[in-house]
Amino acid sequence: MEGELLSALCTPALVVDVDKVKRNAQRMIERCQELGVQLRPHMKTHKTIECADIMTGGSRRSIVVSTLAEACFYADHGFDDILYAYSVPFDKVERCAALSERLDLFQVLLDHPDALEQLKKRPLRDGRQWHVWLKLDCGNGRAGVLHSDPEAVRLAQAITEAEGVQLTGVYAHCGNTYNCKGVEQIQAVAQETTSLTLQFMEKLKAIGITCKSSIGSTPSCSHPVKDMAQLSEVHPGNYVFYDVQQSLIGSCSLEDVAVRVLTRVIGHCPHRNQLLIDCGWTGIRLLSMTQEHGRVEPISGPLDYSKYPLGSLLTLIPYHSCATAMMHPVYHVHSEGRLLGKWTPTRGW
Amino acid sequence: MEGELLSALCTPALVVDVDKVKRNAQRMIERCQELGVQLRPHMKTHKTIECADIMTGGSRRSIVVSTLAEACFYADHGFDDILYAYSVPFDKVERCAALSERLDLFQVLLDHPDALEQLKKRPLRDGRQWHVWLKLDCGNGRAGVLHSDPEAVRLAQAITEAEGVQLTGVYAHCGNTYNCKGVEQIQAVAQETTSLTLQFMEKLKAIGITCKSSIGSTPSCSHPVKDMAQLSEVHPGNYVFYDVQQSLIGSCSLEDVAVRVLTRVIGHCPHRNQLLIDCGWTGIRLLSMTQEHGRVEPISGPLDYSKYPLGSLLTLIPYHSCATAMMHPVYHVHSEGRLLGKWTPTRGW
Repeated sequence: MEGELLSALCTPALVVDVDKVKRNAQRMIERCQELGVQLRPHMKTHKTIECADIMTGGSRRSIVVSTLAEACFYADHGFDDILYAYSVPFDKVERCAALSERLDLFQVLLDHPDALEQLKKRPLRDGRQWHVWLKLDCGNGRAGVLHSDPEAVRLAQAITEAEGVQLTGVYAHCGNTYNCKGVEQIQAVAQETTSLTLQFMEKLKAIGITCKSSIGSTPSCSHPVKDMAQLSEVHPGNYVFYDVQQSLIGSCSLEDVAVRVLTRVIGHCPHRNQLLIDCGWTGIRLLSMTQEHGRVEPISGPLDYSKYPLGSLLTLIPYHSCATAMMHPVYHVHSEGRLLGKWTPTRGW
Repeated sequence: MEGELLSALCTPALVVDVDKVKRNAQRMIERCQELGVQLRPHMKTHKTIECADIMTGGSRRSIVVSTLAEACFYADHGFDDILYAYSVPFDKVERCAALSERLDLFQVLLDHPDALEQLKKRPLRDGRQWHVWLKLDCGNGRAGVLHSDPEAVRLAQAITEAEGVQLTGVYAHCGNTYNCKGVEQIQAVAQETTSLTLQFMEKLKAIGITCKSSIGSTPSCSHPVKDMAQLSEVHPGNYVFYDVQQSLIGSCSLEDVAVRVLTRVIGHCPHRNQLLIDCGWTGIRLLSMTQEHGRVEPISGPLDYSKYPLGSLLTLIPYHSCATAMMHPVYHVHSEGRLLGKWTPTRGW
């Protein structure tokens, strides 16, 4: 199919505009260079080798992953300095140990003393150390020890003191930027997360502990605040594709969105003023969806069906590209509408 | 892992109770035999060979699929008499033709004269005929020509008269049973769909057209009405797994649900009275989910965290098993909690 037009694809199909991907990646690289902070891009949105190469500028170093399946996939393809930024699951300690013993630098994350105990029970071979990030909750309200909880400092200390374990850094995810509208609100959350993280680093310093610090989220890293320069790293991920949600938040413009779902009209429903398309919830979010069908309605007025004959191609912009990409076993990559090839993501956990 | 307990699995994991699958399948087979109607089970929920073998009683004949990827997957594994029950997409006519020329009986579906034109433009080789089902909308409001629309009869006639094409049957999906609560409501919708379909068959008969008829949906086929005996076929699919939604509708009891998502506690959040588990929207629907995290809250009162130490296994019953199964690249099959092996579904379109 190489060299053919997008319309040659069977639908539904996830298509990736490689020029936009490269531009989004390059802009983030430059933004971090200007800020003087290390970029550790997150792989969860695309889960492919090709896109990881673009995000790391070909270095195959310094990435974050959300599943152990991703960690193994990237390790198998020569990537290193991998942070598995997910509260280390107790059923996967042995597989984490194997990666720690195999790679130059494999890093795990935790937010509970019981998790630290699990690591201590499995000392690494060859004098290696567990590299551990402490997950801090700076107001996002998902994983992490609450920044104000005295337990957070105690846990950092326990990690530092544990045999065979070292505290690599403090990690905060400002997913609460997803509730923002506009740059001002994004930067307020970015500022708060940064300030709380830096205050926490000061608390650690006061008891003689120094380590890295990292915050992340696509909105905050698309519009960084100056204080983020005092962090060691940032770890955004979605920015490489962006999506409608990110454009509504204000992280990007709609033109920056690098992915589309191609779908075709498969039904006319004049008695309901609707079109039926060949893309259901295994494709993308629409007016309403079932497994393999999407219902499309005009915003107002009657549908002019003559404009949308059966078989006509519609192009949808994903609301949440992580979720949409997850539904597709393969992505079709193009430049200016000409197909270049396919990217195959890893799946599972 | 064979012979091991479910707790040996890394999570999240979709587990299938093969005894319940066999029981659900057998009950549907018997129900259809008693009714005297041909069962043509739908594969969309599981998309695996093993489960298709159970649903067809090993015959590998007479199935429905929702994607062409499924059609090819089953054809490659020796299945035949396959109905691709999806308004024939214009970009897939050539692949449908190839299957029609390769299998003993490959059947397509349409609901628009333009689709018929597409088939006529691609006559089958070796004197073969396109086997076409006409999709009728009997109140479900998704695909299909509205049963009361004179166009429906005209389209049936056009299919009959077209060169190289034959009208195999009339197909109605009573997905509107999903809005029902209880057997009485289910049977009212089943009765209405059956009556409207049979009335339509009479209209066809009056102009000299005879062909098969089929209705389907798990609720209606779990509680069939007597008149369904007058149909040629039924085509339910979800019943082999069932789910919470089906139990709320009244199709089954919760004990009949054959699938579970295993997940582990990965975080304690006492400041929010929540647990964090290792299963997000790539796993199953919960209180709230992000990509790889689910938030679990007690229905009332404070959470007793000592009952749920980090790493403890939770078993979730899927709300919609089709959607949950879709997220898992592999299913773990067990009998009475002992692992028997894995089933690998097909994906894509």
